[in-house]
Amino acid sequence: MNYGIIARTLGYVMMVEGSFLSLSAVASLLTGASDVGSFYPPILLCVLGGYPLTRIKSKSDRFFVKEGLMIAGLSWLVMVVIGALPFYIGGHIPSFVDCLFESASGFSTTGASILTDVEALPRGLLFWRSLTHWLGGMGVLVLMMALVPLSGGSSLLLMRAESTGLDPGKVVPRMRETARRLYTVYIALSAIVLVALLLCGMTFYDAALTMFGTVGTGGFAHTNTGIGGFNNLPAEIVVGVFMFVCSVNFGIYYQMFTGQRLAFFKNTEAVVYTAMVGAVVLLISFNILPIYGSLSAALHQAAFQASSLVSTTGYATANFDLWPDLSRALLMVLMFMGGCAGSTAGGFKAIRVVVIYKAIRREINHILHPRRVQGVTVDDRMLSEEMVRGVLLFFALYVALLVGSFLLVLMIDGLDLLTSFSSALTCISNVGPAFGLAGPMGNFSMFSGYSKLVLTFTMMAGRLELYPFLLLFSPAMYKKG
Amino acid sequence: MNYGIIARTLGYVMMVEGSFLSLSAVASLLTGASDVGSFYPPILLCVLGGYPLTRIKSKSDRFFVKEGLMIAGLSWLVMVVIGALPFYIGGHIPSFVDCLFESASGFSTTGASILTDVEALPRGLLFWRSLTHWLGGMGVLVLMMALVPLSGGSSLLLMRAESTGLDPGKVVPRMRETARRLYTVYIALSAIVLVALLLCGMTFYDAALTMFGTVGTGGFAHTNTGIGGFNNLPAEIVVGVFMFVCSVNFGIYYQMFTGQRLAFFKNTEAVVYTAMVGAVVLLISFNILPIYGSLSAALHQAAFQASSLVSTTGYATANFDLWPDLSRALLMVLMFMGGCAGSTAGGFKAIRVVVIYKAIRREINHILHPRRVQGVTVDDRMLSEEMVRGVLLFFALYVALLVGSFLLVLMIDGLDLLTSFSSALTCISNVGPAFGLAGPMGNFSMFSGYSKLVLTFTMMAGRLELYPFLLLFSPAMYKKG
Repeated sequence: MNYGIIARTLGYVMMVEGSFLSLSAVASLLTGASDVGSFYPPILLCVLGGYPLTRIKSKSDRFFVKEGLMIAGLSWLVMVVIGALPFYIGGHIPSFVDCLFESASGFSTTGASILTDVEALPRGLLFWRSLTHWLGGMGVLVLMMALVPLSGGSSLLLMRAESTGLDPGKVVPRMRETARRLYTVYIALSAIVLVALLLCGMTFYDAALTMFGTVGTGGFAHTNTGIGGFNNLPAEIVVGVFMFVCSVNFGIYYQMFTGQRLAFFKNTEAVVYTAMVGAVVLLISFNILPIYGSLSAALHQAAFQASSLVSTTGYATANFDLWPDLSRALLMVLMFMGGCAGSTAGGFKAIRVVVIYKAIRREINHILHPRRVQGVTVDDRMLSEEMVRGVLLFFALYVALLVGSFLLVLMIDGLDLLTSFSSALTCISNVGPAFGLAGPMGNFSMFSGYSKLVLTFTMMAGRLELYPFLLLFSPAMYKKG
Repeated sequence: MNYGIIARTLGYVMMVEGSFLSLSAVASLLTGASDVGSFYPPILLCVLGGYPLTRIKSKSDRFFVKEGLMIAGLSWLVMVVIGALPFYIGGHIPSFVDCLFESASGFSTTGASILTDVEALPRGLLFWRSLTHWLGGMGVLVLMMALVPLSGGSSLLLMRAESTGLDPGKVVPRMRETARRLYTVYIALSAIVLVALLLCGMTFYDAALTMFGTVGTGGFAHTNTGIGGFNNLPAEIVVGVFMFVCSVNFGIYYQMFTGQRLAFFKNTEAVVYTAMVGAVVLLISFNILPIYGSLSAALHQAAFQASSLVSTTGYATANFDLWPDLSRALLMVLMFMGGCAGSTAGGFKAIRVVVIYKAIRREINHILHPRRVQGVTVDDRMLSEEMVRGVLLFFALYVALLVGSFLLVLMIDGLDLLTSFSSALTCISNVGPAFGLAGPMGNFSMFSGYSKLVLTFTMMAGRLELYPFLLLFSPAMYKKG
């Protein structure tokens, strides 16, 4: 293992986090909040700890998958632990496990909270809490790559370890350029949403925090009444539309911006994803029609909630836990799937659903015509057998982690089946609200510390698409050879 | 498609079913039941329809996977439809959909029933109902193969299509010999259980029907009070032990009988399976300890129910639907997994869990050491990549059918989440009882006809391990090429 390069990258990550913490300290000062002191110790830690690390020389340039996974897992662990400090230092969240949960929920863009009274938190901490969504959404390593020059091989491996979906490395050959393009789109979308929310009449503070949660598909509410509490229908529509927009591959928007106007329609994943979400919205609308009276009201509520859950954001304008069981089951299916690759959304990802569907179709053809050799093709590109196998294994591992997390939480706390299962699901897919006790009108405060640690692990593993975070705690990672 | 050979095999299957129907007619006469007339029309149909079919000459000996799948799917469809006739003819089950459900539940060894008053059925029909478990358990095509000489290639493909697990063809090179060995073990186990139950003081009739349900891992009760209603603890222990015994690969028992005394312990699947079930039994015992007071009583109940559900039999001596949620969740995990390959048990099968675990471990090694080439090995045998991929795809397809069936039933009937999900699970894994309204003290009578048809399809697809039955209804099967 090349520990020099790992330490150096970790140093850069801490510097990035330090700047974001400083931004929150400024926000605290500007809003006249009393909590600016909570930010100084972690900022100092990032600077005094991070800067020396960036100066470490490594003996070699050796950088393999192992190093990439290690950096991703470790960076996120360090980022979450440091990110928990501001909540702890001022005593605003007294238990450190709770602080860790809240920080992991922020960075992983889950948005599940252990707070029963969100507004009790000062405005600086609330700003930081929502800002973690924005940083975690596209990823700290991708941001670092856009800023700091790295050798070609290492940036590809880091990109793979942190970004979502099958293979981010095909947009352009140079990873630094890819990272910059992704952040360009990200910043552009952020600006659009911010301006739109301001035009809807929100204050700058409310608009900024809502934008972090929307574009990062995170979903932390910074008021006790949530997004519906603003009684601002235009703002709800902006949020509803852009949660969905930000759950589609950002590469598509770059292509559309640079001349390929129809890029969206030529992308199988985006088209299938939109069609699936559309079909579910229609089904739910008919299912909840008796509750809302008119089809337009039912469509509005179904579309907002579906967009929120499939994009793994988690804002809610209706208590969908009170909807009929069919609607709740369909929403859980969307929560499992999540958004598209290369977006800020979490979940299993639509592209993997597409690949598994095509692989099953290929298998059936293979059974019927054993001598015919066929590959699995997506968007005119033949996937390697290794990649197909990787997707199938990812599915098995994702389900195993989901069920394992569910059983552990059930064993520890003994809450009901629906609460336990949907909490594990909402955490692995980085959604936020679950069903039952942890539903959209509830929170995660009733879980014990052990369960919160399990769910923290599940959120992180889900955000990093399993391997980087699972391997960080696996002995195989540290074996020589 | 070689329709000649398909028709001929179908003829033999009908002849086999005719003999089993005749046996039930004899049972009806011997027990003085009034329902012997219900058997004459289907027996006539089997003889008059089946015999001419066996005389059909095919133009060629062409026999590929397609023909094998077609024969398996079609044979089981015909068998289930003819098997439903006795219930319908005498008017004892008025709705034909209900008759189909009961027949499919019997042959697939599910044991889920739409009857609210089992004892209202005459003794001949009850005999037939339980006998379908025995015939379906090891499979009608395997029995036919043991009796009728077929060309080598076709018997291998038929064996693959009907028997459970990865690859039945490795026991001995000649399939006819394999079929005979499996049925030898099956008949020996049946005799042992029958004698043991008689020694426990059961009547011959009760012992025979209980044996069919135990050895075939079916689980139809022929009394309203079920297996616990006999108040016969020794018989409960015999059933509890042999449900588990019959969920382990029958090939192992043949090896043990022919000198390899330690064959069980050398079989990875059997060892892992036993360890997993043992661990779950212990967890459940502690979980239900407060209900039963003593550890021995809790262990007894946990072991019987776990043995019943993991072997996918479905007999119950306790209302496990009233157990704590952790126990219910663990039982559902067992129901999903099911027994071992090459047994009469249903479910996903323990061997596939072993293969997926090993494939994930291999993938992790591959990620960490990309240049090292490694295979997936079970019992010193290297599995082909095609087989590993097949197992992973089977998992995805199994989950897809489970979730699809769950959503369809939920959409049609709108029952609660737990009832709908566990009913789909119990049907795909051929267990029998579910949770909620379809729990061990309930039945499937409250489902609508459409839901019953969906669940009938799910049971059949589950029993034939998906492909033969799914493809029977797929246009790809009938395309030339």
